[in-house]
Amino acid sequence: MADRQTTSERPHVAAKRYIYAWGSGTAEGNGTMKDLLGGKGAGLAEMTLAGLPTPPGFTITTVACNDYFASGKQLPEGLWQDVLDAMKQVEERSGKGFGNAANPLLVSVRSGAKFSMPGMMDTVLNLGLNAETLRGLIALSGNERFGWDAYRRFISMFGRIVMDVKAERFDEPLEHAKAKHGKDAKDTDLTVEDLKGLVDVFKAVVREDTGREFPADPYEQLDLAIKAVFGSWFGKRAFDYRNSQKIAHDLGTAVNVVTMVFGNMGDDSGTGVAFTRNTFDGTNELYGEYLTNAQGEDVVAGIRTPSKIAKLKEDMPAAYDEFVRIGQQLEQHYKDVQDLEFTIEKGRLYMLQTRVAKRTADAAVKIAVQMVNEGLITKREAVERIEPAQVDQLLRRQFDRAALQATQDIVKGLNASPGAAVGKAVFDADTAVEWQARGERVVLVRVETSPDDFHGMAVAEGILTARGGATSHAAVVARQIGKPCVAGCADLLVDYGTKTARAAGGGSFGQGDWISVDGNTGKVYIGALPTVDARFEDQKELQTILGWADEIRRLGVWTNADKPEEAAQARAWGAQGIGLCRTEHMFREGDRLEIVRDAILVANVATRAKAKLAAGGELAADEAAAVATFDAAMAKLETLQEGDFEGIFKAMDGLPVVVRLIDPPLHEFLPNLEDQLVKVTRAEMSGGASEEDKQLLATIKSMHEQNPMLGLRGCRLGIMIPDFVKIQTRAIINAQVARRRAGGNPISKIMIPLVGHVNELRATRTLLAAEADKIVAAASDVKVDYKFGTMIEIPRGALTADEIATEASFFSFGTNDLTQMTFGYSRDDAEGGFLLKYVEDKILPVNPFQTLDDAVAGLMKIAVDKGRSTRPDLELGICGEHGGDPESIHKCEKIGLDYVSCSPFRVPVARLAAAQAVLATQHDK
Amino acid sequence: MADRQTTSERPHVAAKRYIYAWGSGTAEGNGTMKDLLGGKGAGLAEMTLAGLPTPPGFTITTVACNDYFASGKQLPEGLWQDVLDAMKQVEERSGKGFGNAANPLLVSVRSGAKFSMPGMMDTVLNLGLNAETLRGLIALSGNERFGWDAYRRFISMFGRIVMDVKAERFDEPLEHAKAKHGKDAKDTDLTVEDLKGLVDVFKAVVREDTGREFPADPYEQLDLAIKAVFGSWFGKRAFDYRNSQKIAHDLGTAVNVVTMVFGNMGDDSGTGVAFTRNTFDGTNELYGEYLTNAQGEDVVAGIRTPSKIAKLKEDMPAAYDEFVRIGQQLEQHYKDVQDLEFTIEKGRLYMLQTRVAKRTADAAVKIAVQMVNEGLITKREAVERIEPAQVDQLLRRQFDRAALQATQDIVKGLNASPGAAVGKAVFDADTAVEWQARGERVVLVRVETSPDDFHGMAVAEGILTARGGATSHAAVVARQIGKPCVAGCADLLVDYGTKTARAAGGGSFGQGDWISVDGNTGKVYIGALPTVDARFEDQKELQTILGWADEIRRLGVWTNADKPEEAAQARAWGAQGIGLCRTEHMFREGDRLEIVRDAILVANVATRAKAKLAAGGELAADEAAAVATFDAAMAKLETLQEGDFEGIFKAMDGLPVVVRLIDPPLHEFLPNLEDQLVKVTRAEMSGGASEEDKQLLATIKSMHEQNPMLGLRGCRLGIMIPDFVKIQTRAIINAQVARRRAGGNPISKIMIPLVGHVNELRATRTLLAAEADKIVAAASDVKVDYKFGTMIEIPRGALTADEIATEASFFSFGTNDLTQMTFGYSRDDAEGGFLLKYVEDKILPVNPFQTLDDAVAGLMKIAVDKGRSTRPDLELGICGEHGGDPESIHKCEKIGLDYVSCSPFRVPVARLAAAQAVLATQHDK
Repeated sequence: MADRQTTSERPHVAAKRYIYAWGSGTAEGNGTMKDLLGGKGAGLAEMTLAGLPTPPGFTITTVACNDYFASGKQLPEGLWQDVLDAMKQVEERSGKGFGNAANPLLVSVRSGAKFSMPGMMDTVLNLGLNAETLRGLIALSGNERFGWDAYRRFISMFGRIVMDVKAERFDEPLEHAKAKHGKDAKDTDLTVEDLKGLVDVFKAVVREDTGREFPADPYEQLDLAIKAVFGSWFGKRAFDYRNSQKIAHDLGTAVNVVTMVFGNMGDDSGTGVAFTRNTFDGTNELYGEYLTNAQGEDVVAGIRTPSKIAKLKEDMPAAYDEFVRIGQQLEQHYKDVQDLEFTIEKGRLYMLQTRVAKRTADAAVKIAVQMVNEGLITKREAVERIEPAQVDQLLRRQFDRAALQATQDIVKGLNASPGAAVGKAVFDADTAVEWQARGERVVLVRVETSPDDFHGMAVAEGILTARGGATSHAAVVARQIGKPCVAGCADLLVDYGTKTARAAGGGSFGQGDWISVDGNTGKVYIGALPTVDARFEDQKELQTILGWADEIRRLGVWTNADKPEEAAQARAWGAQGIGLCRTEHMFREGDRLEIVRDAILVANVATRAKAKLAAGGELAADEAAAVATFDAAMAKLETLQEGDFEGIFKAMDGLPVVVRLIDPPLHEFLPNLEDQLVKVTRAEMSGGASEEDKQLLATIKSMHEQNPMLGLRGCRLGIMIPDFVKIQTRAIINAQVARRRAGGNPISKIMIPLVGHVNELRATRTLLAAEADKIVAAASDVKVDYKFGTMIEIPRGALTADEIATEASFFSFGTNDLTQMTFGYSRDDAEGGFLLKYVEDKILPVNPFQTLDDAVAGLMKIAVDKGRSTRPDLELGICGEHGGDPESIHKCEKIGLDYVSCSPFRVPVARLAAAQAVLATQHDK
Repeated sequence: MADRQTTSERPHVAAKRYIYAWGSGTAEGNGTMKDLLGGKGAGLAEMTLAGLPTPPGFTITTVACNDYFASGKQLPEGLWQDVLDAMKQVEERSGKGFGNAANPLLVSVRSGAKFSMPGMMDTVLNLGLNAETLRGLIALSGNERFGWDAYRRFISMFGRIVMDVKAERFDEPLEHAKAKHGKDAKDTDLTVEDLKGLVDVFKAVVREDTGREFPADPYEQLDLAIKAVFGSWFGKRAFDYRNSQKIAHDLGTAVNVVTMVFGNMGDDSGTGVAFTRNTFDGTNELYGEYLTNAQGEDVVAGIRTPSKIAKLKEDMPAAYDEFVRIGQQLEQHYKDVQDLEFTIEKGRLYMLQTRVAKRTADAAVKIAVQMVNEGLITKREAVERIEPAQVDQLLRRQFDRAALQATQDIVKGLNASPGAAVGKAVFDADTAVEWQARGERVVLVRVETSPDDFHGMAVAEGILTARGGATSHAAVVARQIGKPCVAGCADLLVDYGTKTARAAGGGSFGQGDWISVDGNTGKVYIGALPTVDARFEDQKELQTILGWADEIRRLGVWTNADKPEEAAQARAWGAQGIGLCRTEHMFREGDRLEIVRDAILVANVATRAKAKLAAGGELAADEAAAVATFDAAMAKLETLQEGDFEGIFKAMDGLPVVVRLIDPPLHEFLPNLEDQLVKVTRAEMSGGASEEDKQLLATIKSMHEQNPMLGLRGCRLGIMIPDFVKIQTRAIINAQVARRRAGGNPISKIMIPLVGHVNELRATRTLLAAEADKIVAAASDVKVDYKFGTMIEIPRGALTADEIATEASFFSFGTNDLTQMTFGYSRDDAEGGFLLKYVEDKILPVNPFQTLDDAVAGLMKIAVDKGRSTRPDLELGICGEHGGDPESIHKCEKIGLDYVSCSPFRVPVARLAAAQAVLATQHDK
């Protein structure tokens, strides 16, 4: 036993396996080993194992990286010897020699973590070059300029990344050399002599800045490069990026040492990138571009215009056929569209990378449906593969596709908030407000935004910033207020002084110039690109996917709609009921506001007078007059509202409609206090205010509340002035009677808002049920069904849900208010204020008004459990804005709600998210 | 077995025992049987068993009452025969005959429920009188007028209560008869002939109104009277009273049939009421009054002036001695002061009632201490016997005792809210406001109050209403706003037309007349009675009781105090620490407000500029200027606040001081928006507003919040503008250093308010601990201890207390805000508005801002359990106003807090309540 322990301990300490090689059709790792080998290393191993042609190489594991840091930035024991052994194997497999002047092996040293961190980590190419091997390279390629260009690039790249020489120390001599060829000269204008000169200068720079010669020994180069790539794991960029993306810091990066292959060895060479299907429109065709006699860099840099991938068939039919076959093989293997990088060196195809391809929303749904039809994936996999944000994007106004393809963007940033924005560029918030007020459409362009810019952002069509990431002020606010936003366009130079912006790649615009900003892609265009409304009806594949989602999901998806046309649209998009029909507008529209104001002015006097009458008292003349005025107004409103409800019941025939009785405080129907105060003050200074204005001001003041959110509204209002809710109830029931008589099937659920104590609900319900029952009894020819329920939107309501459920047949969680009160936030004040800083500084992980907070969800769970404890068949839904947010929908699934209700345009998103929530729950099990 | 079951079932069904008799030194019931016999019946049985002389009688049980209603208002089977048997026994014990013309037995039929319901239920006296027995009564009493007066009273009383004849049908002929003797004639002016005439008229009235003769048969009288008393249990008055007092409706009332004894049988007869100790000032002496040759009614009606009880010793020494002995015996028996009713009939003493005596607050504490010293009760019993409200009363301003005793009240109502109010009578709220504004002290007099009167109540010294009970609008509001109130003075006729009030017993006052209203007793006086401040130091007995309470209680009692003098007072009253030192006034007092305003105007610009500097940026000139202005203001405030804290630490030397960092939103330090708006508007209309005023208006507008309660305040403010809390922290720590150097022992606990998420606390704590530690490190000569904790006042804070406790060494529940947010109420708006109606209509059982709501307490319990789960030694207190409310203190005991903190003048109340909470918990076990 003792012996075995010793044996098993030894390899752990002394013989850790740090290296996994691949090549010649075999590999020590495989595609499942992303933790250890990183994404790139695992992919290369997997491709090799699948028999695909890859340039030989090896991966140094993430464990080696962690051990490197653990031992104070020393290569762990044994690693270097393993590297030397692995290099021998690579030499054998490539048939070249590392440092061999006649037949030099060059390698790239590339980072590769578990999660892709684009551009955040370091890579060094062409390792192994020195004065001797350069000669071999030139001989083999037959291209002197290529050789010297590669050499000067290698020195500056290595110098910068490995030896910490500042980039500008190389940039300056390069600019100087180019300047000799004219003002706008490019790299390609440099001659062989220029390049040779630069190599000398660069070597001198390294010598000056580091005090040592540029290392000529390939193995020294390799040692230093490996350490540099390890080191870049804790570089500032990478560290910040992981923080922002919530990636753990202890994952470490792998290091891939890969044989360089050259697509620029002549006309039988080439390089390219391609997708196994069209990731722009979803067509099932190989889609990409390539260049003959070129290196990968040339494709990326855009120096030469690449050809469509189809041309490869003409140029090198054998290589093309092999590439097509490989693409299909990889797609079958990974069951998804692949993003491929390849190089052909002297007729021989090498696969450099394969990964799941990013795609447009449109392509995503089309490809998913195709693949289900091909039997490649299941319906469930198809549903899981679509992001809710893509559905959202498909239903937003978008740029016309043809126009997009025909237009070159001038700059690209982070796609921070989706949608298409077209407007005139303005460079400050005040101008945005001013121009918008005179009817202009504007896009606000800033270096970065601050809370002072909020008023400008609120009126702009979209926002464009030069600095800041996905959680910058601009990005957070834009998503919050639903504006398209492109953030962090590092290549856009914004000059407030001249009110112009200039793209690094050329192109500029000034204040008043039309620009188009694509929040879906992060691209910015000069001019006003045409946009198109998204038509759900035309998106057959989307409908197919959502149909599959419907088969999977448990949660119902209802909608928040106040008007028949909204209800009809939501129904067409799949809504199974109205979860929140707000009735406030029924008091506001058209002439009604005037009627309501008449009523409000006498409401308190009339209500007290009625109570007096009921108690057997007699009314004074002014009291009787108030009652008459009040009742007349109420009667008018009742008739109008009955018509409103008929329309809604007709649109939702056969589906449930949750009608929320009037909720806002009455003073919202009166003019603003400040405005009226200024009006009366002004009038008094110039001859005197009218009695009417003064009385109105007095009424507004008497109704003014310190904190209207927490004031006389919801059921409190109905208890104080019962007529407002009595007429609403009568209007609902009478509308149902009318619809029944017309052969319809109206289903009403009357929702009493803002209940915090069961007695509020009991008192209101008793009052209203009496009104309803009178009408039901009188309409004996038809059957009318109605139910009473409540919103749970006050913490106390949630905490006492067992009591409240005894009086409610359903709960609908009003998570907007519930979040406000649970946090003690006033949304109106907070979202433009401290909440921005809270999200920016990570005091809160997310804006809790966008995504349901866990503590609020916990409170809902308490309410669900308590409510069901006294009423097992309690119907439970959510009607706050969270009902349309995918992450929140997942929480609703876990809490066990029966349905979510969201705005009509979020209904498709919610259908998908609800299905994904079920699948996620199954995965959890 | 089967046999025994049958036997035990039989009495339950067929032979229920409905009657418990007493007399001749024996009784079938006893004092513990209040449920079955009611309070009066149990008391009479107990006195009889104790060997005391009682008039013989019997009690029909509460079960009989319930059975009566259960069988459709039929006497239950067997009951009547039992009554006849019991009457036989009474005849034997009294030596008189029921219906015997020569020696008539008369009885009273009295209601008697478990709980006293004063004046709510019916009683009939002199039952058994008819034309024949009247002759015997006259012969025995030798007083013809007495006999006829008793007879006419009996007919009207029986007619009204038993036969449902309206009272005015008897009152009219009575008034008519009196009118013959002059305008202001009284009952006593009626002659025997008048009374004989009235008897005829009354009998005719009964005949007319009921269609039957007045019953002459004593047993018929008895049958009807028993049913009438049963029936009065569901009379409207009794029903409403039980609802208001939360007495169950199924308790039922017992009926007591008691031999009438007459104190008006000559000079060897008499009647009186007495207390075994002085219930006014607590002196240990027999205290009461009596009348020779008189009936109980005469004492109550105040027709003759009674003598002090001491005179009985001279008049009837034997009876007096017996009475004294009985009183002592009862006190020993019940271990409390007794309220006794007695009658002496022809030298023979009868005890009619004994019950625990009501007493003044002053008497209550003195008597309790006496009784402990006498060994009659334990300290625990003494502590339990004092009501917290009495302690409160003893510490409020009171009327001068001598003046009270020397002055006759004009009317008495319900003591709805304690304290002494002196002011000029006003009859409407607007006048109250107007007069108060010009410096007058006013008392608002209304028939009843409504929400429209709130502004008048708020400025009045006290409130007096003619209608409404303990839960009327006036009573509820008065208690809420801490104003003395006497409500429901039914004998006060308030005439708004003439602005006068007239007492039924004489006396009146008009608008502007001084009146004095005693909220402790419910009495109203004409004129301005002198008042005295209560001096805790002089109240030795109170201090003794509180000392005993301290030995019992588990909860600490701390105080909410902001200034040294408040702290010192609270400490003298027993406070063991400061649980809440608000620091807002430190920004407001004197010149400071101007400094703060200077700072606020530049606060945002300066704070952002500082962040820019910290990030390595450079400041524009205006930014630098803002920083300079801001920092200068902050430095001044820091110095001033350090002085404030030194004073507080000195006053509380050696005791903990919880300092809450600045909490209110900054706009509270600026002028009101409306005022500034009017100012600027006016100035603009007449030549133009100053730049300063316009800028101030702009700042106020920019800081304006829709719902400031839920806005930028508490820790949110400190996160947005850290300097405000940084200077406060430095001032606290520097003050501690100074106190230490002066030899003091300052103990600070720094409380961060309004925390809803642990990250808020972590960020603030980290920031402030750094400030504090710098000072502590610099002051190496002294040891300074400080701790950080938080207020739990946001529902989310309570729900995530486990996370928050990881950053807090203590929690203090801010139950004012916690109640606001848990209910979704804005206290400022609700308490003058819908909350009044809610309490009045019993939608809420109590005002949750006065007494901790159960759901809020439940939320606190969640927080306590979660908090202790991650930090077992977490210190837990409460600093909302509930900390001084006895019922809430009981809940704090149950929840398991460590201490309560309340305003200084509530500290003694809290000490008592905390002890009672322990005792109540022990009783529960």
